[in-house]
Amino acid sequence: MKLLEERIIKDGIIRPGNILKVDCFLNHQMDVALFKEMAEEWKKRFAGKNINKILTIEASGIAIACIVATVFDNAPVVFAKKTESLNIDGEVYSSKVASFTKKRVYDVFVSKKYLSPDDHVLIIDDFLAVGSALNGLIDIVNQSGATVEGLGIAIEKGFQGGGDSLREKGFQLESLAVIDKLDSETGTIEFRKD
Amino acid sequence: MKLLEERIIKDGIIRPGNILKVDCFLNHQMDVALFKEMAEEWKKRFAGKNINKILTIEASGIAIACIVATVFDNAPVVFAKKTESLNIDGEVYSSKVASFTKKRVYDVFVSKKYLSPDDHVLIIDDFLAVGSALNGLIDIVNQSGATVEGLGIAIEKGFQGGGDSLREKGFQLESLAVIDKLDSETGTIEFRKD
Repeated sequence: MKLLEERIIKDGIIRPGNILKVDCFLNHQMDVALFKEMAEEWKKRFAGKNINKILTIEASGIAIACIVATVFDNAPVVFAKKTESLNIDGEVYSSKVASFTKKRVYDVFVSKKYLSPDDHVLIIDDFLAVGSALNGLIDIVNQSGATVEGLGIAIEKGFQGGGDSLREKGFQLESLAVIDKLDSETGTIEFRKD
Repeated sequence: MKLLEERIIKDGIIRPGNILKVDCFLNHQMDVALFKEMAEEWKKRFAGKNINKILTIEASGIAIACIVATVFDNAPVVFAKKTESLNIDGEVYSSKVASFTKKRVYDVFVSKKYLSPDDHVLIIDDFLAVGSALNGLIDIVNQSGATVEGLGIAIEKGFQGGGDSLREKGFQLESLAVIDKLDSETGTIEFRKD
């Protein structure tokens, strides 16, 4: 998606270790006008899919998922939580997720009340690298008996392989910007051609 | 706000210890159509205020804040983060917040890049009890030199006093449902009259 690629070039900051900081518009300060354009793009790419629920993971995925829901007939948004809370029931679907930035493994969970075999789920997240969060969410959907209709990612680090592995498994993965190369020395970003 | 009070009565679950679970529409599964109505209500209540930024705190505040932004000319949304991340710069405003549900104190922070003396901030969150999160966010806005234009809360537990304390300090606090009494034995909820 041209608009997102241009924004990444304009505002993204490349750091050593293949880190791309986009916290000025995507995951700390958030540009909801951009999210609306992204949502419309996914709406086109998932046209014909019978989607009745949006699933994401806290925290920054929530913002994009909620704007996406507004273009999918206000489908309910469910977000997977990362730590056990006294306010949550024991009855949950859970999976293990490794964090690339925080270098640790944590449990993610969704209450069994909010996913069922009747659900046709669009999974939304801001970033995809090795795919740990996305695989955790897919695992949770599978446990519930619901159907994964598609995966919508804002920025995929294509060179880390998680996305291609999911495409090979047959998922419709729609990443709006796929980065094939990040060079922190020259500050250049190479996007995958459609 | 009648619509929200009715939804709390219909779908809220009261637990001993003054706990109100509204995770089927507010903070685990999320009803964005309801959030849009709430956003329109805040738009009316904060009419005339010059708001150019929405500030919230992860995780569930993000959902409401993003929908609110869509009715405030797509103002940027900034969310305060709860744990240090390798992806964030050291240059942050921070404050201490005590969690009512998790019974612990944590640091919250916002990058200095995203709040400045030019900002006129509407702070949004899902719940207000003793007001620890809200006071932390106000502290962060004050550190930045920005102006707090208003506080928008979905559900205020009026009997815990945090809201009235903020009103006494002169803030325009607009809670869309203020609960004066929760009775887990009878399952009744008493709302404050406007």
